[in-house]
Amino acid sequence: MSAERDFIQQLRGIARHPAARGLLDDAAVIAPPPGAEIVLTHDMLVEGIHYLPGDPAEDVAWKLVAVNLSDLAAKGATPTGLLLGYALAEDPHWNRRFVAGLAEAVAAFDVPLLGGDTVRMPAGAPRALGLTAIGSVAAGAAPSRSGARPGDILWVTGTIGDAGAGLRIAAGALAGPPGLLAAYRRPVPRIAAGCRIAPLAHAMADVSDGLLIDAARMAAASACHVAIDLDAVPLSADLRAFAGEDRAARLAAATAGDDYELLFAAPQGARAALLSLCQPLGLTVSAIGRFAIGEGLSITDCGGPLPPPERLGYEHGAPDHP
Amino acid sequence: MSAERDFIQQLRGIARHPAARGLLDDAAVIAPPPGAEIVLTHDMLVEGIHYLPGDPAEDVAWKLVAVNLSDLAAKGATPTGLLLGYALAEDPHWNRRFVAGLAEAVAAFDVPLLGGDTVRMPAGAPRALGLTAIGSVAAGAAPSRSGARPGDILWVTGTIGDAGAGLRIAAGALAGPPGLLAAYRRPVPRIAAGCRIAPLAHAMADVSDGLLIDAARMAAASACHVAIDLDAVPLSADLRAFAGEDRAARLAAATAGDDYELLFAAPQGARAALLSLCQPLGLTVSAIGRFAIGEGLSITDCGGPLPPPERLGYEHGAPDHP
Repeated sequence: MSAERDFIQQLRGIARHPAARGLLDDAAVIAPPPGAEIVLTHDMLVEGIHYLPGDPAEDVAWKLVAVNLSDLAAKGATPTGLLLGYALAEDPHWNRRFVAGLAEAVAAFDVPLLGGDTVRMPAGAPRALGLTAIGSVAAGAAPSRSGARPGDILWVTGTIGDAGAGLRIAAGALAGPPGLLAAYRRPVPRIAAGCRIAPLAHAMADVSDGLLIDAARMAAASACHVAIDLDAVPLSADLRAFAGEDRAARLAAATAGDDYELLFAAPQGARAALLSLCQPLGLTVSAIGRFAIGEGLSITDCGGPLPPPERLGYEHGAPDHP
Repeated sequence: MSAERDFIQQLRGIARHPAARGLLDDAAVIAPPPGAEIVLTHDMLVEGIHYLPGDPAEDVAWKLVAVNLSDLAAKGATPTGLLLGYALAEDPHWNRRFVAGLAEAVAAFDVPLLGGDTVRMPAGAPRALGLTAIGSVAAGAAPSRSGARPGDILWVTGTIGDAGAGLRIAAGALAGPPGLLAAYRRPVPRIAAGCRIAPLAHAMADVSDGLLIDAARMAAASACHVAIDLDAVPLSADLRAFAGEDRAARLAAATAGDDYELLFAAPQGARAALLSLCQPLGLTVSAIGRFAIGEGLSITDCGGPLPPPERLGYEHGAPDHP
């Protein structure tokens, strides 16, 4: 059996949802919940650009699923299914490990694989992996990136900077707490939190390129200014132990990206409701800034102003991603 | 401005549908028509595998859209939108021409670009392009590949083999009628025909890998035998002039693939309705075989049996695609 057929056969083992039609049809067919809107996203991971060639195949599959589901979470959507675009590696062992990681992820996030395409790449070409995630949300309930209003508070879920430290550990073979490496390789999209927060949020996005740059983009899309309290940005105990918590460490965390936490704008009166919604999930939410009339981004640290760093995070086209 | 940002800026010019959110959000949000089911497909094109490195960028973009919409057509679906997964080429001129072809295709097929992802590839890597197409169809109306029944007639729209001859012209710089090259580079998905035929079809698929192999797959998925009348397979006047119409030419046409015509099973009583539904579209439909109890594929030609050729069409993993 060819590597391609062998791989598709392995995928069938995790594509048992009726809408997947056994991966034998031209397309998947799903029935959306009545009154729901459909949320769609497509993110790619390229070997040598978005992940390190030595990263475990299982983790690459997990991350491909997680980064796409994180985009759905940022719209308050519940995942419906996935379509995989897989450029087949020459190494069948890598492919098998990828399917194993995919199986773990679809089980962990309870989202079926519905279809996609498997293709060969010319010999020696890097792997290029694409995933489309489909979700549903109550009509009108998906917050955009552009809805923040002057006076809104800027919030973030969880902690920031762990994945950036994890990347340094993975790339440099530094020793470090396993939680940081896991944050880089096995991010967990905030699906349940996104569903709960969406009705209270004026704007929401996930932190993928860096807290500062993603906040600046939300402010720009919303035609507002955003002021960030750098000292309010939540850091994990692991990160503080690994990298310290001085200003340089906090700036590194706030510009590293790959966090897949939810960043959102909510009116001041929503504070109590937010805290009580997230508390049962065991998830912290932190107020880290506020929106104002104006434009751009400003930073304060321990009460004093801090000029924003030149690099706020990952920008498309900048040569600074792994 | 970086090549990546420049490209995204060009895409914004053709992503003006409100659901695209200006390509500034994490995800696209669409409202499906009440009572509709959602049809989803994702197909990739890889340079050197699915298209020739010298093929015009505009045509590659067109074909990427067309092959995905053809999958929707085979389910009787009306296109709702597209998500593009684009591994950026180093050549900005190629990228611009790709966007121009994409603009032509989304206008021609009246389907909006809703989002996606643009990534860099490592230097020297081949282009890998993915597209997700979303469509809608009345609940329960999407025919599967597996619904053919013994006694059904096998039908195909249009003509077969033009694209295969077009590939030979493109690859070998042979002279040939421009219609054949156009069939290879600018296929037209049978969207309107798919919508009309779907309610009458027990099973439907598009001809992408070769008429014989796609018919054999429909028979296998439907647990039927299929008998093909090779002499009934419709050939265009261009193809007959270019390649003749002897048995070898007809077998080449029926195994070449890339036709993007609709192949479907319909009960014998549907003949008159089918012909009158397709006539206003200026589209021929041809009865080319029938399903029976059993399994496998058999071929007759001019009334006599013909052993099926070893190669029925393109198979995943076989090294016979461009």
